[in-house]
Amino acid sequence: MSLLKETIQKIYPQDSEYRDKAKERLDQLAMPPWALGDLMDLSMELAGICRSITPAVARKAIVTMAGDHGVVAEGVSKFPQEVTPQMVYNFVHGGAGINALAKQAGAEVIVVDMGVAADLTDLAKAGKIIDKKIGLGTNNITKGPAMSMANATKAVEAGIEIANDLGKNIDVFGTGDMGIGNTTPSTAIAAIITGKSVEELTGRGTGLDDEQLAHKRQVVSDILLRNKPDPKNGLDILAAVGGFEIGGIAGLILGAAAQKKPVVVDGFISSAAALIAITIEPFARDYIVCAHRSMEPGHRAMQEKLGCRPLLDLNLRLGEGTGAAIAMNLVEAAVAILTEVATFEEAAVAGADK
Amino acid sequence: MSLLKETIQKIYPQDSEYRDKAKERLDQLAMPPWALGDLMDLSMELAGICRSITPAVARKAIVTMAGDHGVVAEGVSKFPQEVTPQMVYNFVHGGAGINALAKQAGAEVIVVDMGVAADLTDLAKAGKIIDKKIGLGTNNITKGPAMSMANATKAVEAGIEIANDLGKNIDVFGTGDMGIGNTTPSTAIAAIITGKSVEELTGRGTGLDDEQLAHKRQVVSDILLRNKPDPKNGLDILAAVGGFEIGGIAGLILGAAAQKKPVVVDGFISSAAALIAITIEPFARDYIVCAHRSMEPGHRAMQEKLGCRPLLDLNLRLGEGTGAAIAMNLVEAAVAILTEVATFEEAAVAGADK
Repeated sequence: MSLLKETIQKIYPQDSEYRDKAKERLDQLAMPPWALGDLMDLSMELAGICRSITPAVARKAIVTMAGDHGVVAEGVSKFPQEVTPQMVYNFVHGGAGINALAKQAGAEVIVVDMGVAADLTDLAKAGKIIDKKIGLGTNNITKGPAMSMANATKAVEAGIEIANDLGKNIDVFGTGDMGIGNTTPSTAIAAIITGKSVEELTGRGTGLDDEQLAHKRQVVSDILLRNKPDPKNGLDILAAVGGFEIGGIAGLILGAAAQKKPVVVDGFISSAAALIAITIEPFARDYIVCAHRSMEPGHRAMQEKLGCRPLLDLNLRLGEGTGAAIAMNLVEAAVAILTEVATFEEAAVAGADK
Repeated sequence: MSLLKETIQKIYPQDSEYRDKAKERLDQLAMPPWALGDLMDLSMELAGICRSITPAVARKAIVTMAGDHGVVAEGVSKFPQEVTPQMVYNFVHGGAGINALAKQAGAEVIVVDMGVAADLTDLAKAGKIIDKKIGLGTNNITKGPAMSMANATKAVEAGIEIANDLGKNIDVFGTGDMGIGNTTPSTAIAAIITGKSVEELTGRGTGLDDEQLAHKRQVVSDILLRNKPDPKNGLDILAAVGGFEIGGIAGLILGAAAQKKPVVVDGFISSAAALIAITIEPFARDYIVCAHRSMEPGHRAMQEKLGCRPLLDLNLRLGEGTGAAIAMNLVEAAVAILTEVATFEEAAVAGADK
């Protein structure tokens, strides 16, 4: 059996018994009912995911997946493609946003070359990044599919392999991305899976002006005309519009779900990957924690489709896993509420009048 | 000169030179312009507050101030007054929400008896709490003022003293409250200072039903009829409606501002105290970081008056300083962005096309 099939077979919904056990304790904590709101909802999710009322979340990693996109030839990004490998070096040297924010949250940063259009073997040989390179960037998706079905499977399985390898030492995964041009395939994925209009979903990415935004909308429309994947087939969608790092993130999510571990999904690109993942296996949804609401306008529709309310809304639009890193603090906080706060009885505090 | 006057004289606006220096660096970071959104706004605020582009935020304390309220005789809370001292014991034993969340954020919890209606001298003698007790709860404010003007000054100065004492070892303050019934005086403060209607501002506190909410609205209206403080005189408002812990928090905010240190303001009660503080000295506003948007409906109007957008919106309604504790992570994150992320030049990353 293929790694993907094997992984899918291990993905079950959250365990409602542990959700109930968590709720029972949370209802008894010495505070007004559900007074810590969304954090208590998150406590229940984590209990259901980990099958424990003391979910393990101490060991955290943000997996930042990098890949390039042939569609940049259409002028959909303000930044040149060479920024993708340059940022990989920046991650390795510890100088990027994700390094600072992961450090604050006590999370490791794992950088993966899924398909950067540059030779990064020196970094891989030095053990600084994980090499899962599938190609030197995807094809230009205004002209045809991003990649073959075989490579789509390979990308997803690479993400699963990383989740499996890291899972020995990691309790909570966070997703991150780097890839100049990758809001374009992500917008296409959103359009295919949510059914919403290109007009509504397309945003300014790293900073397009009005004219450039209109052009990007046209490019996304062209992509959808040229590629018509089955909206119920995640691998088909991935092969059609890409990209390699999006496939890797989708695999990471599936791999985390198969291990019954939470995966904190970052912003717009990571959510596109999450949509691919839940299209491949809908139960994977139960393992996703949505970190934040990105500034990209399509993000709301994507999160509605994912069925989750983001924890943070801070006008972030960087990617890299930065929102996931910040949200790791809230994951820890949710577990602290469940495991460290005393009940009315334990604390000898009088309850409310009935 | 009184401690209060002396403190007010030390409060100046943020230093725009350091805000500008921070902005200059943030604009050069190797990422799209202002891609970390509200966290970058916060970085600028912290630079302006601390007069540094490497603001110190490592040493953090949540100061949780406790006091009782005579108005509970009117049946405005679901919980009996004895819960206030019981929760103080819970804080001291480490079993409350604030203990768990402050620990997650790496912050100390300092508990202060500002006016609990119980004898807590054993805890004070054992060094477990700070004793600034002004009385055994405020007067019933449906019948007259909460406290004398002398005690209002004393409450605020107690908060300043705590800020000054802790300031030797603390970089960032967080505010917290405990006091059964304290959403009622806080709602009255909001009505007096924002000018909004009681209808709009009054909420369910720790969990009132519709009938109880209607009663609470009537009580707040009665309070405002009975007490007509000068809306431009913070001490007059505090004396009129209370409470002791609200005065203490207002003092803490003024004390932090005078030391040019950030103070993370928790939810509804702490925001009422912040309104008192900025009524006493408007420049204090510049030192406030609004932690979160509480579920209490009046909180939005209060934060608009404070002129700040909350960092978190998690349906919290506990108080104790819990929202402030969670937000401490974001304060750290904002400083990490300013001090640890490389510029385009430092990281040798290509910039955007112009």
